[in-house]
Amino acid sequence: MSAREGRTQFGADTPRGTGEFFTVRTVSEALAGFRPARRTPVEPVALDDALGRVPAEALSAPHALPGFARATVDGFAVRAADTYGASEGLPSYLDIAGEVRMGEPPELEVRPGTAVAIATGAPLPPGADAVVKVEHTQAATPELLEILRPTTPGEGMVRADEDAAPDAQLVPAGRPLRAQDLGMLAAAGLVEIAVHARPRVTIVSTGDELVPAAPPTAPAGPAAAPPADSAAAPPAGRGPAAPPIGKVRDSSAPALAALVREAGGEPHLAGIVRDDREALAQTLRAALPASDVLVVSAGSSVGARDETAAAIASLGEPGIWCHGLSLKPGKPTLLADCGGVPVIGLPGNPRSALVVFRLIGMPIVRQVGGCTDPPPDPTRRARLERDLPSAAGRLDIVQVRLQDDEAVPLFGSSSLLSILTAADGYVIVPEAATGLAAGSEVEVTLYR
Amino acid sequence: MSAREGRTQFGADTPRGTGEFFTVRTVSEALAGFRPARRTPVEPVALDDALGRVPAEALSAPHALPGFARATVDGFAVRAADTYGASEGLPSYLDIAGEVRMGEPPELEVRPGTAVAIATGAPLPPGADAVVKVEHTQAATPELLEILRPTTPGEGMVRADEDAAPDAQLVPAGRPLRAQDLGMLAAAGLVEIAVHARPRVTIVSTGDELVPAAPPTAPAGPAAAPPADSAAAPPAGRGPAAPPIGKVRDSSAPALAALVREAGGEPHLAGIVRDDREALAQTLRAALPASDVLVVSAGSSVGARDETAAAIASLGEPGIWCHGLSLKPGKPTLLADCGGVPVIGLPGNPRSALVVFRLIGMPIVRQVGGCTDPPPDPTRRARLERDLPSAAGRLDIVQVRLQDDEAVPLFGSSSLLSILTAADGYVIVPEAATGLAAGSEVEVTLYR
Repeated sequence: MSAREGRTQFGADTPRGTGEFFTVRTVSEALAGFRPARRTPVEPVALDDALGRVPAEALSAPHALPGFARATVDGFAVRAADTYGASEGLPSYLDIAGEVRMGEPPELEVRPGTAVAIATGAPLPPGADAVVKVEHTQAATPELLEILRPTTPGEGMVRADEDAAPDAQLVPAGRPLRAQDLGMLAAAGLVEIAVHARPRVTIVSTGDELVPAAPPTAPAGPAAAPPADSAAAPPAGRGPAAPPIGKVRDSSAPALAALVREAGGEPHLAGIVRDDREALAQTLRAALPASDVLVVSAGSSVGARDETAAAIASLGEPGIWCHGLSLKPGKPTLLADCGGVPVIGLPGNPRSALVVFRLIGMPIVRQVGGCTDPPPDPTRRARLERDLPSAAGRLDIVQVRLQDDEAVPLFGSSSLLSILTAADGYVIVPEAATGLAAGSEVEVTLYR
Repeated sequence: MSAREGRTQFGADTPRGTGEFFTVRTVSEALAGFRPARRTPVEPVALDDALGRVPAEALSAPHALPGFARATVDGFAVRAADTYGASEGLPSYLDIAGEVRMGEPPELEVRPGTAVAIATGAPLPPGADAVVKVEHTQAATPELLEILRPTTPGEGMVRADEDAAPDAQLVPAGRPLRAQDLGMLAAAGLVEIAVHARPRVTIVSTGDELVPAAPPTAPAGPAAAPPADSAAAPPAGRGPAAPPIGKVRDSSAPALAALVREAGGEPHLAGIVRDDREALAQTLRAALPASDVLVVSAGSSVGARDETAAAIASLGEPGIWCHGLSLKPGKPTLLADCGGVPVIGLPGNPRSALVVFRLIGMPIVRQVGGCTDPPPDPTRRARLERDLPSAAGRLDIVQVRLQDDEAVPLFGSSSLLSILTAADGYVIVPEAATGLAAGSEVEVTLYR
């Protein structure tokens, strides 16, 4: 029997006061109801580093853009009225007064009966209200231009404020900055942007079975050099040796850290804690002040989960919001608010943990980071290759592989990561459905 | 007239030897035919930094995973044969021999007629071939277990090699690493991954009208401190002042840098060069040795484009592959191979440049970075709000806003970035089509 308190890690004698699944919620209840008020502070970021960052406020044009009327074609700046009625058979004749130099303020004026040569992007000279394409002109002499087609005011040019009027919104608050947004901000000279700080997401792994993925590195300093026969170093020329029987490497933490990054957060791996309520509570308490979101990748046994729930419950008010989700895989999920920090207790099985974090954790990280308009997920329509049974009221996430237009479900224990690495995406069997029939059209959310 | 060689920046006297649109190709020809052989070298990266990186080779399991048979439920390890015929009315009785401790090698054996308590994730003791869920058992006494349902070999457990057999492929070469891939590699102890180096993409901006988006910063050192009345600093408490008439800020370079990052590359902004063949050729020649891909964001006038083409043609063999794409916007695109470095000459209009780089440039950056399986783009089906006319043989990229299920096209000069910042995505009018009719269903590729 276990030395710890002389009882098994599950069963009737496990204390239930912490509430194994005592408040089970649906995923839609969790997404709608568990909405942390916390937001990260605002910090400046250089435009060059702002891709994907979330503006804290809408940003407006400090002045008109492009700032002056510009030609959008290569040709001649004219007064449109001078071209009315022009045709190939009966051209209008205009005196070529000169040329606008690219990048310079125009020195010439377009007076009635004259034209000024202008290249795409150059500023319109005073007096001009249109640009005739060079293809619609013909040089009669070097000083005399034939206009072969009429133009109208505004043709072949953009207005000084056509890209943005002064004070017009350039990008909204809350939407991660895209490439073109950075271009627009650069055009406006806004090279330092006020964005929400990346949420600091601490990931605590628990489980007596866990060892770190990387062998511990020796601390700096000659005194701490590992012994020559150190078991930590993998044998030369081969892959790492298997951990001892009973131990597995912590695979959830690095994968969760990647999802945190995808959601715009800054992961911090706090390492592995024993399945011990006090040790865990201590680690969590220490992590809380430097965390915007706290993630506990919990042990997989009921006993370990109870320890986790008790440790989280001890962290502060208002405490546990739900303990159990109507979700497969991912039922043993715990959501809590500990003194304003959202805490997510994930299932111990790596696949379940990743499914839950994608579904519930990433939206929370985004929310705390001020993102109100998350980027769309890639999806594809496909025909379901076989029946997917499910229970009404429960959301099922089924991993699938795409074969031509067919979504082929991948089944297996939720402890298996290979199901996720083999998958191209997943199908959601909604809470209202009792399953999906083979041949029905489904939307596959694709991994990227 | 322009002082430079006394001629206009376009027109019949422009030298055409460099070939304005002398080899126009379709986008599909470019995607299929302009495929650089260049690949970036392979470098090691720590697992924690490997999200989105491209493995240079497929990675295999160094040993079986999880490495030992594990319970997947909380319950009792048994010999399945001992449970055959068990029912609530007529249970099987087994002696409880003890408990497997989580994370430790099992000390007990499951002999016929015995059961060993086991928690999810713990190693199966020798002799056991199944785990009965605790819910299907009842403790008759602390030492005697009632089995209420039969089990079969393999139930309630995973095999030692069920997640991966030794040498089984964990992740393929060429597909950017996803969160779950990192989890799988961590499980296997592969914490340093051989990936393709990020392609170094040099972005050269040309255009006499361009000024940098950021005011130049003073070089380090007290001697270089800017004068107190420096015009470079924006007025306190207000946004930046508009550049002088004729000048616009370089908006393409920062936006292109962001797309380079999205494609897994490392952008390097080489700054702004005058529309001068020799100055440009010098800058390009200097950039070439440190570039895996060279991007020239060309001036927008025909003259500037000719200078760019001539400068690129001077860089090395085999030289220009196409000069002009059947694409709207984006016709003035130049693709070249200069001594093994793919060179992309982009249109001067910021919107065209971004459209072309997304369509042609990002696939090239990915290819050079070893990515053979690019991540899928998010898409949505929508009904087209109005007719989209197009020319057969030309690909049109039409920016759209989504309003409910409708795709609303956004029209305007290709110099306007606001069309792109207002867009949710774009619709492709294929080369074969002469347009798309209002009301037809289209696929919108969404920005993220």
